[in-house]
Amino acid sequence: MPIVKPRTLSGFMELLPPEQIQFERMAQVLRETYASFGFTPLDTPLLEAADILLAKGGGETEKQIYRFTRGDSELALRFDLTVPLAKYVALHCGELSFPFRRYQIGKVYRGERAQRGRYRELYQADVDIVGDGRLDIAAEAEIPAVIYYAFTALGLRRFRIKINNRKLLNGFFEILGLSERAGDLMRLLDKRDKLDAAALSGLLRVSDIPEKAAFEILSLTPAALERYAGKNALFDEGLTELRTVTRYLPEFGVPETHFMIDPALIRGLDYYTGTVYETSMLDYPEIGSICSGGRYDDLAGYYIDKKLPGVGISIGLTRLFYILNEQGLLSDELVTAPCDALILPMTDDLSAAIRAATLLRERGVRAALYSEDKKFKAKLSYADKLKIPFAVILGEDEIRQGVVALKNLETGEQCNLPIETAAEIILTEVKRRNTGSVIKEKKL
Amino acid sequence: MPIVKPRTLSGFMELLPPEQIQFERMAQVLRETYASFGFTPLDTPLLEAADILLAKGGGETEKQIYRFTRGDSELALRFDLTVPLAKYVALHCGELSFPFRRYQIGKVYRGERAQRGRYRELYQADVDIVGDGRLDIAAEAEIPAVIYYAFTALGLRRFRIKINNRKLLNGFFEILGLSERAGDLMRLLDKRDKLDAAALSGLLRVSDIPEKAAFEILSLTPAALERYAGKNALFDEGLTELRTVTRYLPEFGVPETHFMIDPALIRGLDYYTGTVYETSMLDYPEIGSICSGGRYDDLAGYYIDKKLPGVGISIGLTRLFYILNEQGLLSDELVTAPCDALILPMTDDLSAAIRAATLLRERGVRAALYSEDKKFKAKLSYADKLKIPFAVILGEDEIRQGVVALKNLETGEQCNLPIETAAEIILTEVKRRNTGSVIKEKKL
Repeated sequence: MPIVKPRTLSGFMELLPPEQIQFERMAQVLRETYASFGFTPLDTPLLEAADILLAKGGGETEKQIYRFTRGDSELALRFDLTVPLAKYVALHCGELSFPFRRYQIGKVYRGERAQRGRYRELYQADVDIVGDGRLDIAAEAEIPAVIYYAFTALGLRRFRIKINNRKLLNGFFEILGLSERAGDLMRLLDKRDKLDAAALSGLLRVSDIPEKAAFEILSLTPAALERYAGKNALFDEGLTELRTVTRYLPEFGVPETHFMIDPALIRGLDYYTGTVYETSMLDYPEIGSICSGGRYDDLAGYYIDKKLPGVGISIGLTRLFYILNEQGLLSDELVTAPCDALILPMTDDLSAAIRAATLLRERGVRAALYSEDKKFKAKLSYADKLKIPFAVILGEDEIRQGVVALKNLETGEQCNLPIETAAEIILTEVKRRNTGSVIKEKKL
Repeated sequence: MPIVKPRTLSGFMELLPPEQIQFERMAQVLRETYASFGFTPLDTPLLEAADILLAKGGGETEKQIYRFTRGDSELALRFDLTVPLAKYVALHCGELSFPFRRYQIGKVYRGERAQRGRYRELYQADVDIVGDGRLDIAAEAEIPAVIYYAFTALGLRRFRIKINNRKLLNGFFEILGLSERAGDLMRLLDKRDKLDAAALSGLLRVSDIPEKAAFEILSLTPAALERYAGKNALFDEGLTELRTVTRYLPEFGVPETHFMIDPALIRGLDYYTGTVYETSMLDYPEIGSICSGGRYDDLAGYYIDKKLPGVGISIGLTRLFYILNEQGLLSDELVTAPCDALILPMTDDLSAAIRAATLLRERGVRAALYSEDKKFKAKLSYADKLKIPFAVILGEDEIRQGVVALKNLETGEQCNLPIETAAEIILTEVKRRNTGSVIKEKKL
């Protein structure tokens, strides 16, 4: 008799098989794209000592962390992949070569208030390039290329990467004589996308920003940047970096249509020190950034007496998958069945059917044997429900003739063939159906 | 200034990049093999409500479980992939089709006493076929084929799958009139591999087993099974099942050399009800079973009022990887570098080198750009340390001539070539080096 009603914790994504296959496809595309840029895969523990994860401290995150005591140990579940990277690099730095390029796709834990589309267990997919002491600006131009190729490989077309440089922004505030207000101003600018110009202008006025400075802040467009060149060393450094990044980007394969300078882009207050990135879907601005990151100067200062600057980005894969699924942007053309062909024996002795399954597998077909003793109709309806592309039927006639009956379950066509021919037909058709990509944008 | 000394929890595997790449290869081989049999991938949460994970109860496991309270919730980290499967199937059974075939490769947590080769965070790689109400015996013959193809694809040759049937064993004890002692006897038989016949015979005598019965237990070889046929219905049912399984196994592609009947094989006392499996490496018997499992009758009785019989196996991937690495059985021929080619710009302007990297990537080469401003020797030594197969060098001369200098870092050969030709050479050579498999058995 059942004792406990089965349930999954709220805020924990648990997918049905067809969705899971789509999710795995997305993760695999990211793995391949990251690897194509020479990033090596890492896999660090999900559990770490709490003092390790919290070495950096930090308000909001600390409240959301899953931590507990076991024996003498204070343990915690990781809440991002950056702190474990910092620990890994600090711990193994003698065995690593720098620049160290790694990707990691893994689950992280945040005890957020559960709500639709917010997850407590979520996949992040990160890449970082970490230097020893210094890191060339080219790395800051490479990262948006990783973003571009990753989303393009997933099938997304209508997106744009926004780029800014924190030195430039801080230099700009110095020019305006507002360095001490930099924090407030950045918080305001961070809202620029959500507010109209009038509302922002009002907020600047309320914040006691001189009218002239407020005007300059509001008019800080890419075209206006040149006007401030030569007035402040930090601004100039930022401008030079930004120019280098945007000059190298097309060489890295990113078309001009897919990136833009946004001088008001902030991306967190205290971590990033150079180029910063955000990525938005053109048709879904309300979703916000689907991939963000930037350049930092000190990855692991709380673990090691060594300056490790780096640059990286993170894709919130669980959230992205949820959004794509919600918006109906996941292609339904790709095969999501557990197998390409279901082998249906029509005789009591299953030997011939088993041999057929073995032969199909050895030729690269994902072949499952249906060995339950059910009516033919029930067997076919199993295949239909799972959207299996083909049934391979083996009755006495087929066995005697040394053929199989191959049924295309999409078109209903059926014919008797040697099994080798059946294998070829299945492989060709499944390959054809899987040539598309995971994301399929709708015509708006 | 550093605040915390970086460390990883004891009992938590954290690999360096080349090992990590080998580990990922193994996981990928398992994913592909499992998928080829028509198993669908699942990914369930690592955290579940404690009452869900502990619904079944169970001594040793319960002590080892990582559990904690958060807010009002008692949470626990999963300690295997079977209980989460049971929960998943019970929770989603209306949306699944049966037989439900799934694989899952994921981390589980066990707070064991830390010791060499024992891990607290470990990967398991499971497959299960779950039926609704009934499940044909053919499924019990398919599972050893999954084991055989998985290890063969990993490169292992010298292993054998032991097979037994619990009905046969229980029937045998009934025939001997020792049903009430079945538990004790199975515990004794379970040690048969570790004891010699004299020691086992002594233990049977101490346990008050009549001498004749003890003799029959000790002489229970595969050849002796026929002798008991027709004496007990349960024994006969087990014998028929065992015969069906071993008859179908070669049709499933498993050669006679790679499986054997072992009538003394036990595999846990109360869970399994039919065929059971263990897999051992012929040259490393001391390692014990590297893949075990069996047939069970009631997967999710503690969650749902529905009989869900199934059959499955589990590979302890973290432990297997540790053993293979320890024994020097991981091939060092496969490429473990983060990239196939390192692009070395020799000019201040990196444009040409970036374009070269982009072009190589678009042709399928994993290409990393080395953009740090270092001496040529330092750049080459970076590539050497990471065992990168090729360097692609772009100096002023090469740029002017529209070629690249391709250096094979294994042979030292270098020549100037059009980049398209370089891409072909790199792809061919990397493919050649990666044709081998992950495991390379030593000649003993």
